[in-house]
Amino acid sequence: MIEVHAFATPNSVKVPIALEEMGLDYDLKPVNVRKGEQRQAAFLALNPNGKVPVLVDDADGERLVLTESAAILVHLAEKTGKLLPTDATSRARVFEQLFFHASGLSPSFGNAGFFKRSSPEPQPIAEARFIGEAERILALLEEKLSGQAFVATDSFTIADITHFGWLWRRQFPGLVLDGLPNLSRWYDTVASRPAVQRAISCVEALVSAA
Amino acid sequence: MIEVHAFATPNSVKVPIALEEMGLDYDLKPVNVRKGEQRQAAFLALNPNGKVPVLVDDADGERLVLTESAAILVHLAEKTGKLLPTDATSRARVFEQLFFHASGLSPSFGNAGFFKRSSPEPQPIAEARFIGEAERILALLEEKLSGQAFVATDSFTIADITHFGWLWRRQFPGLVLDGLPNLSRWYDTVASRPAVQRAISCVEALVSAA
Repeated sequence: MIEVHAFATPNSVKVPIALEEMGLDYDLKPVNVRKGEQRQAAFLALNPNGKVPVLVDDADGERLVLTESAAILVHLAEKTGKLLPTDATSRARVFEQLFFHASGLSPSFGNAGFFKRSSPEPQPIAEARFIGEAERILALLEEKLSGQAFVATDSFTIADITHFGWLWRRQFPGLVLDGLPNLSRWYDTVASRPAVQRAISCVEALVSAA
Repeated sequence: MIEVHAFATPNSVKVPIALEEMGLDYDLKPVNVRKGEQRQAAFLALNPNGKVPVLVDDADGERLVLTESAAILVHLAEKTGKLLPTDATSRARVFEQLFFHASGLSPSFGNAGFFKRSSPEPQPIAEARFIGEAERILALLEEKLSGQAFVATDSFTIADITHFGWLWRRQFPGLVLDGLPNLSRWYDTVASRPAVQRAISCVEALVSAA
């Protein structure tokens, strides 16, 4: 069975989306990050880094406990042969976007949200730095999507799932898609996929039940 | 031929290290980031994100221009069959560390250095946030390396190369390895590899020549 320890967070949602897209069964195990459950001993035993999501996959006879949402997506894609192309060039484009997300979009969105909402005192240079970086990254994605249907190639891949996670939660850093028609078109296309809608319902249900 | 557009930066050095380890020939093309060459039109045509390194690989008859240092390492590892295991569990451990680096270590080191050295005005909460996060991540690596020889598995992989890049430049955020014996042992082991030494000499020569 596959277990996903997660909550309704930008990184968590990526894993149920991938599992729904790939047609794999899974159990969603809530980790209420609003109550700090990701810092409790039971969770730290799964991920000493104290972050959701965590995948526990013993479907292949060996128990694999895996952290880092993008590493989980790569694992699931290689396991199923889905959403990660096999030709070298397309594959390189997918990994390029996965790492552009992990090193660029994700930390800029997360830090922009922190300095806008959660910092104990205003840090205007920090807030402007991360908001500016997030907006610059959205403009790069807009340009990319002016020439192709999805972020890595003309097909939907795990790279789209990873960018979608944070764009779905863009309200946290207060970012908008106004004036970005190609990114808006891409977002609507991904958001309307049935697997994506099922995954979002599942993680939102964790919050209602908490 | 393989070209690497790079400078003596934490992310740049990873690519020559990988190429030296894999025994591939390459031309190193300097991009002097101290003079802002990464924001000039010629470079932006290669990478609209304005960041080094960039790989240009036409060795397989098709010109691949690839950005994001970790995506470049994955591409080279899959091209040569080196430094990225093929069994699902070890492979998952490598990708976990690649994304832990990209989303955790790298942005915390980079932002810690920025707020410590380059911010136009002090931002004490931001500086403490990123220094604290960087130190937390080093402690996680120390714990990991207490039980295994290298960061992903007991063998040297591209995950070691990616962490090494920033640890080699730890002076920028002012971080030290004091009190971290396993991480220090790992650092010295990686730093003493002949391929790593050759790569460092190559990128340092770009600075002397600039």
